[in-house]
Amino acid sequence: MIAAKLVLLLTAITCSVIAMPDRNIPAQNFAQTERVMHPNLQRANAINVNADEFETSYWQNQAQETILNKKDMTFNKNVAKNVIMFLGDGMSVATIKSARVFAGQLNGEDGEGNKLAMEYFPYSGFSKTYCANAQVADSACTATAYLRGIKANYATIGVNGQVARGDCAASLLDENRVDSIATWSQAAGKRTGIVTTTTITHASPAGTYAYTSERNWESDEVTFETDCDDIAYQLINGKTGQNFNVALGGGRSNFLPNGYADEEGVVGNRLDGRNLVDEWLSSKSERNAAYVWNRTSLLELQDDVDYLFGLFEDEHMKYYLDDVNHEEPTLEEMTEAAIKVLSKSENGYFLFVEGGKIDLAHHSNLPRKALMETVEFSKAIQKAKDLTNEEDTLIVITSDHAHSLTMSGSAARGSDILGIGIAAEDGIDYPALTYINGPGYRGEEDGQRYDFAQNDLTDKDLKYPSLVPMDSATHSGEDVGIFASGPWSHLFVGFNEQNVIPHIMAFASCVGDGYTACDE
Amino acid sequence: MIAAKLVLLLTAITCSVIAMPDRNIPAQNFAQTERVMHPNLQRANAINVNADEFETSYWQNQAQETILNKKDMTFNKNVAKNVIMFLGDGMSVATIKSARVFAGQLNGEDGEGNKLAMEYFPYSGFSKTYCANAQVADSACTATAYLRGIKANYATIGVNGQVARGDCAASLLDENRVDSIATWSQAAGKRTGIVTTTTITHASPAGTYAYTSERNWESDEVTFETDCDDIAYQLINGKTGQNFNVALGGGRSNFLPNGYADEEGVVGNRLDGRNLVDEWLSSKSERNAAYVWNRTSLLELQDDVDYLFGLFEDEHMKYYLDDVNHEEPTLEEMTEAAIKVLSKSENGYFLFVEGGKIDLAHHSNLPRKALMETVEFSKAIQKAKDLTNEEDTLIVITSDHAHSLTMSGSAARGSDILGIGIAAEDGIDYPALTYINGPGYRGEEDGQRYDFAQNDLTDKDLKYPSLVPMDSATHSGEDVGIFASGPWSHLFVGFNEQNVIPHIMAFASCVGDGYTACDE
Repeated sequence: MIAAKLVLLLTAITCSVIAMPDRNIPAQNFAQTERVMHPNLQRANAINVNADEFETSYWQNQAQETILNKKDMTFNKNVAKNVIMFLGDGMSVATIKSARVFAGQLNGEDGEGNKLAMEYFPYSGFSKTYCANAQVADSACTATAYLRGIKANYATIGVNGQVARGDCAASLLDENRVDSIATWSQAAGKRTGIVTTTTITHASPAGTYAYTSERNWESDEVTFETDCDDIAYQLINGKTGQNFNVALGGGRSNFLPNGYADEEGVVGNRLDGRNLVDEWLSSKSERNAAYVWNRTSLLELQDDVDYLFGLFEDEHMKYYLDDVNHEEPTLEEMTEAAIKVLSKSENGYFLFVEGGKIDLAHHSNLPRKALMETVEFSKAIQKAKDLTNEEDTLIVITSDHAHSLTMSGSAARGSDILGIGIAAEDGIDYPALTYINGPGYRGEEDGQRYDFAQNDLTDKDLKYPSLVPMDSATHSGEDVGIFASGPWSHLFVGFNEQNVIPHIMAFASCVGDGYTACDE
Repeated sequence: MIAAKLVLLLTAITCSVIAMPDRNIPAQNFAQTERVMHPNLQRANAINVNADEFETSYWQNQAQETILNKKDMTFNKNVAKNVIMFLGDGMSVATIKSARVFAGQLNGEDGEGNKLAMEYFPYSGFSKTYCANAQVADSACTATAYLRGIKANYATIGVNGQVARGDCAASLLDENRVDSIATWSQAAGKRTGIVTTTTITHASPAGTYAYTSERNWESDEVTFETDCDDIAYQLINGKTGQNFNVALGGGRSNFLPNGYADEEGVVGNRLDGRNLVDEWLSSKSERNAAYVWNRTSLLELQDDVDYLFGLFEDEHMKYYLDDVNHEEPTLEEMTEAAIKVLSKSENGYFLFVEGGKIDLAHHSNLPRKALMETVEFSKAIQKAKDLTNEEDTLIVITSDHAHSLTMSGSAARGSDILGIGIAAEDGIDYPALTYINGPGYRGEEDGQRYDFAQNDLTDKDLKYPSLVPMDSATHSGEDVGIFASGPWSHLFVGFNEQNVIPHIMAFASCVGDGYTACDE
């Protein structure tokens, strides 16, 4: 018995010594490391921790302050004139935590105790993300849930579970279609807009305006043999898309004719020969409309613009870290431009903003990019908060699904979130951030597990380790967070089926066919 | 451009076909698989999904119902006579999701849409789990946070950040010690109790009564060369431990003399020759006290018991799945027994209940056991909810830290949560549940990634795959959930530093030195 206990104890001590050699050294003594790097790469540096944290009074005072700030919290039961929904694609709970640390370390400040913009929001809940036929969901069926209010089949948008993936005919039936909160908001006389860092025809933004049995039908180059309209076509000519006051993102090729090169040299891919950008301009010719395709034009917009269409890339917009010369607007800049146009509405507005490349970076096992996209997403949220009033504006932040990024190990406080430092039993260190599957898989070399530490960890395109080889990492299935402020934001507390989200937003802003705050 | 788009499209289609071959088959047509197995193993079976979920009306009605149920929610600003804290050790957000599916499938019902007990709780928040010197925390420093209200150093309990791990002398200084909410509750005249499935001297329960610079000092067999009291000694003779009305769990060896064998044949390990069980009985000789060491005695307790001490194993209690003959009480049974003793108090009570073996199963990469322990934890929560009234009882459920269990892939709805079915690029299937590190690591055989599907997936001791070899899996660092009902439960919404939790419980129940609801 004693022997067994001692082995247990020694194992515990040994493990902890291996895992966290500096644990007994006060964190404020950790050495800082300086590395020369590309200025836009903004590598996180391990930083010092406030010495006060090692005192009892620091935490007791902080807790008392928190309670005094929170104890008189109230329910905001106003009608929401405006609703802004922020969607962090693939922004799992672990992504938020990792990005929080990354953001703090980027500024040379404490990472773990740092706060992203959503952490200042008063109410929080969880969203259950499975779809009608999927245990682990994709961005299409989830968009149908969080924007249209029903769970549907994997890869389908705006149609119910009767429509199988790729079944064009079934998707054309009215009884299988479901409108989005953007449609409901337009019917209530509100302005509407969408903003994303992906193609504007990607699954998440398409959730606001498209009806399709296949999320990949973004252009008619892939739908020309069906009777179904492609997603780009639906944005310009569909019943909801044509009324948007704002649509900003990437994916210009899907709107231009095959072979045609536009002013920036972007070549279209449409087989129907239509120039949907021109069609959009024509349809808005008698209104104050502006089409922009670069950052400068967006930032120099006239105040009288009522309709704004911006396509800043042929495909997805660049990762923030790749846009070294800042040629494309940031999500924060697009959000500000959108709110400027929308807030002129007397009846209020609905705005959808997606940080879409968090997900794409995770699919490629690129945590530095995923975390930076999350930080940019957080900045856009903060901008919206600064430009609006919580008395009349409901802001909801959530994710469609999780990703397998995990922050494991027993790293010491202040460790570089993108660094190495956790020793495994085989003596080969591994990083705090890893994935379950994806292209970061490396297997063994000469019977030895791959030594990840040999890489340049400041490389923004370094694929972090994964357990299982996949060209593109899969999503993961755990619940994601919901964070909200403004009218009726308290209704998001607890566990929510994801499809309830738009119904609550509709309730708060008195749109749609359901019971609303205006019926109270 | 077209070529590039087509490649992209084909990749997307190919990936989805590989990952989810049945995606276009309505989920209700999935075949059921029956397997003969040990009755207590209770393997989850893939089950059918309600066909109504494929209709629009199903989700719209469910959402309307949710809103109507939620819209009149109120703040409960009563004083909490009683506080029950449930701690799911290592119960990450992904653990909750996986256990939800597992629990539903165990009953032959829908898994993804199933609800665990905490999902019925009205308010939810997030807890930031890092400690003073740890980016990814352990169960000791976190217990100091969620029970004492301060963040401290890894592996230390009840002492502040001035005390380094293993520094006995520093831990003896009064100014470095911090009391727990159990101590505060006793000072306010309340009954107090602790329940766990681990040793009663393990880090989490010790958080209520012990002060130590080393969590592994559970018995004096490891502290005899120091001036510090071991944790078992502190439970029986310490200022808080000696006043507990209830202490139920495992770890009997730590309370018995070295070489001494008790009525069940459990041999003690104490070097000081003390029989702490006898000491406890003597100290309570003039009160209605009962010591029990098996399930039968616990269930047959007399109603007049005011002090209850139960040690059901020499070490940790058995995993639920290993206790085939049900010789040990379940967490639910222990919780009920505890509430019975505590609720006789006119001044109310504080009860701490830990589902401690969720964490231990994760450390061993044993998801079937981890999920079953979570289901048992959920049953204990439900029992407490049934036995109390939310008008006067605050129930708080949380976790100390996360684990790296991940539910990834693109599995179809209703897939066996413990099954295989996700095909990787190398053609070797992998399971939905995997870990980042731990003893489940298997590496390659003959240059091929290990084929996990060759295992018997109904084996409760099957270690699931991990990326990095570790004798014991590490924790992970993402935020965990907080779920609460009863007086002031709304104060847990949003993001919370973990150490705020006991201060809110103290505020609600008017104990401790801080500002409380009774000062309102």
